[in-house]
Amino acid sequence: MEVLVPSDVKQSSMDRDIMGKQMKQTKRIAVVGFGNVGKGVIEILLKHKIPQLELRKIVVKDKNKERPFSVAPELLSTDIQEVVQDEDIDVVVEVMGDVEEARKLIIGALKNGKDVVTANKALISGHGPEIFSLANERGRHIGFRGTFVGCHILIHDVFLSARTIKKVHAILNGTCNFVLSNMARKNASFEQSLSEAQTKGYAEADPWDDISGSDTAQKIKILLGVLNNTTRTDFSVPYEGIENISIQDIHFAQDLGFAIKLLGIIQRVDSGFIVAVHPALVPLRSTLGYVEDQNNAIEIENEFGMTSGLVALGAGTYPTANAIINDLQDIVYQANFFMPRFDIPVKTYTTDECQRRFYLRLTVIDKPGVLAQITGVLGEHNISLSSVIQKGPQSPEYTYVVMATHTTRERQLRLAVNDIDKLDEVKGKTNLIPILE
Amino acid sequence: MEVLVPSDVKQSSMDRDIMGKQMKQTKRIAVVGFGNVGKGVIEILLKHKIPQLELRKIVVKDKNKERPFSVAPELLSTDIQEVVQDEDIDVVVEVMGDVEEARKLIIGALKNGKDVVTANKALISGHGPEIFSLANERGRHIGFRGTFVGCHILIHDVFLSARTIKKVHAILNGTCNFVLSNMARKNASFEQSLSEAQTKGYAEADPWDDISGSDTAQKIKILLGVLNNTTRTDFSVPYEGIENISIQDIHFAQDLGFAIKLLGIIQRVDSGFIVAVHPALVPLRSTLGYVEDQNNAIEIENEFGMTSGLVALGAGTYPTANAIINDLQDIVYQANFFMPRFDIPVKTYTTDECQRRFYLRLTVIDKPGVLAQITGVLGEHNISLSSVIQKGPQSPEYTYVVMATHTTRERQLRLAVNDIDKLDEVKGKTNLIPILE
Repeated sequence: MEVLVPSDVKQSSMDRDIMGKQMKQTKRIAVVGFGNVGKGVIEILLKHKIPQLELRKIVVKDKNKERPFSVAPELLSTDIQEVVQDEDIDVVVEVMGDVEEARKLIIGALKNGKDVVTANKALISGHGPEIFSLANERGRHIGFRGTFVGCHILIHDVFLSARTIKKVHAILNGTCNFVLSNMARKNASFEQSLSEAQTKGYAEADPWDDISGSDTAQKIKILLGVLNNTTRTDFSVPYEGIENISIQDIHFAQDLGFAIKLLGIIQRVDSGFIVAVHPALVPLRSTLGYVEDQNNAIEIENEFGMTSGLVALGAGTYPTANAIINDLQDIVYQANFFMPRFDIPVKTYTTDECQRRFYLRLTVIDKPGVLAQITGVLGEHNISLSSVIQKGPQSPEYTYVVMATHTTRERQLRLAVNDIDKLDEVKGKTNLIPILE
Repeated sequence: MEVLVPSDVKQSSMDRDIMGKQMKQTKRIAVVGFGNVGKGVIEILLKHKIPQLELRKIVVKDKNKERPFSVAPELLSTDIQEVVQDEDIDVVVEVMGDVEEARKLIIGALKNGKDVVTANKALISGHGPEIFSLANERGRHIGFRGTFVGCHILIHDVFLSARTIKKVHAILNGTCNFVLSNMARKNASFEQSLSEAQTKGYAEADPWDDISGSDTAQKIKILLGVLNNTTRTDFSVPYEGIENISIQDIHFAQDLGFAIKLLGIIQRVDSGFIVAVHPALVPLRSTLGYVEDQNNAIEIENEFGMTSGLVALGAGTYPTANAIINDLQDIVYQANFFMPRFDIPVKTYTTDECQRRFYLRLTVIDKPGVLAQITGVLGEHNISLSSVIQKGPQSPEYTYVVMATHTTRERQLRLAVNDIDKLDEVKGKTNLIPILE
């Protein structure tokens, strides 16, 4: 087995020293955690000998555990406290996973004058103010690109362009995107696709955090912080997951020219932001519509009518490790761009008042007059339709009716659907998905 | 008409002062040039009041010329030298266009201790060493995101990830991409599409710099500099344009499942980089294949097998102005990441030795035995085919033959094509385009 040893970087610990300004000092790094992400970070640091990044310590629970590659024994330690207090460590990379442990580690590291890099979404979206205010107070850097993984590439730009960004539509969960694109490609059910994702290691044994939209909501919370230059957490992001998307929905959407994706949405309005996480129909021929497998994507529209879109792998050892390495390099280059303020309130709105088109899928009793009844209710609520598809019966008794509305206010439509779902001829709850064009 | 006045930023000339580290000083800016790009920069600076960016002077040739919006008269000056020597200017934004004038201005500004931002491709790709070594010597920053426009968003990432980047495929010219996608969409000829681009203002009256691939080659040169952390210009990027792409080529490519795009290519090889600019067949269903109109795109593959792709508007007032504003913000945040070295040689190779598949389009006399003759020559050169399409006669005498080869060495194929073009039955030169999968 290959044994990776730290590079001898002491001889070049200062790169160049031009007028003091470009003096770059080697950063001595401790990586806490040697799991999926940790191993990627350790491998890149040891193999690629990136200038000014020197791996000094790896904190593990068990020194004797077998690893994908072996490292010089003097790198390993089981003592977190030793690392936190070690004056020869400049940066702590937290890749442990657990929120409370990570929080304690990071606070300890900051108090001991160290910069911190973490990929811990729950920590950053839940404890932002505490951690960032301590970092500000101590003049330290917190890198958190790893919380976005694929989309971290645009974080620098999102921050720089924040004032002119009008709208962000993003696919931020690789598990959901794998499941949805697998359903479309293989004509497979939600359950089949989720179980395939689990077999392939793209979904956890308990996939609820991903499937429910909760993971995406955490990322949207962090992203809104970057947009708004704050780490306040006193607002919530309403989320809806993909668990109710059926293979029929995917087929009907395709018939109408759309793909179904789980989107995180931020939209600037006069006095704040509309934020939401929900499935949406996006055009098949569009940056978001094309995104397959575990890829993530982000589409940003600015007030000059310009749209840019990025597609990149959204999870996994190397994508996350890469994001962390970029954070470490930002520390070397002192590109400490995100210095959040705490006096900026975050005013958020739901999509209730949004004017959009909608996709509706109803299961109805297959008898004459039902469609007239449904469209009648919609008419009473002033909702007009752009297309209706009625598919052959799904069972002797039931059939699907699929409708696409013209632009309508979400609140209005929900009232109408509420009335429709009370009809005797309608079975179960109508599936309602916004269409984003 | 709206009159834009500079914001009163004096009261907040220091943002925060946390341990000295986050102290951000307002940068006082002079914009030299009020053309297409200049007006965008000026408008954003005056309207958006971006923190720490204060527009102090606009240098124009004629103060009385009518502008899309009027600015406070005290901002205007006709004297470049006054600006260069003005101690109250921290950053000069050069958006004049002319190379020699721009070079003099930038050298003067650097010598007077000012940072510089420019969108001048010809200047950066042609005079890099002179300008950057002066900037290094004086400890000044040169922003040049505007030379990439749409793709500038990834510049920070390309620099940070340089060591692990294996391959870059990029659509960097909006004019070419408009022409090619217009041909495909409207079934229009090259000439019709180019003239439509000119009417719409997407192509210059003299479009040769764009169409020939020369503009893309300049951008690839700068991009390779960022990848290799150097601004050496002692290498050339061979380029081929889109002037020989016919509407038939686009149809044949579509039949084979591909779109034709003009690509800039950088590929890392052991001892250097393969660099080239040429049309290529890319899969219709791929990030690059989908890119339409004047959009630019960049696809980056790293050694961990990860691919990320960005699509963004590649030219125009606001895209370029936006890139320049981001450069200005980098100066405020002291994110001076690109400090090129001059002792790093750039070893470049052509695509001669590349192993790729190729598309060939031949015009041949429509008589029996011709195809056998051609495939015979290819066989002699050990080139095997994956598909052959023979289309109905184009004229009473001539017909098209289209072939896709298996993977082959470019040098080998060119020898074969050279022999084929000597055949009496073959009219004109065979059109040969690499297939990139």
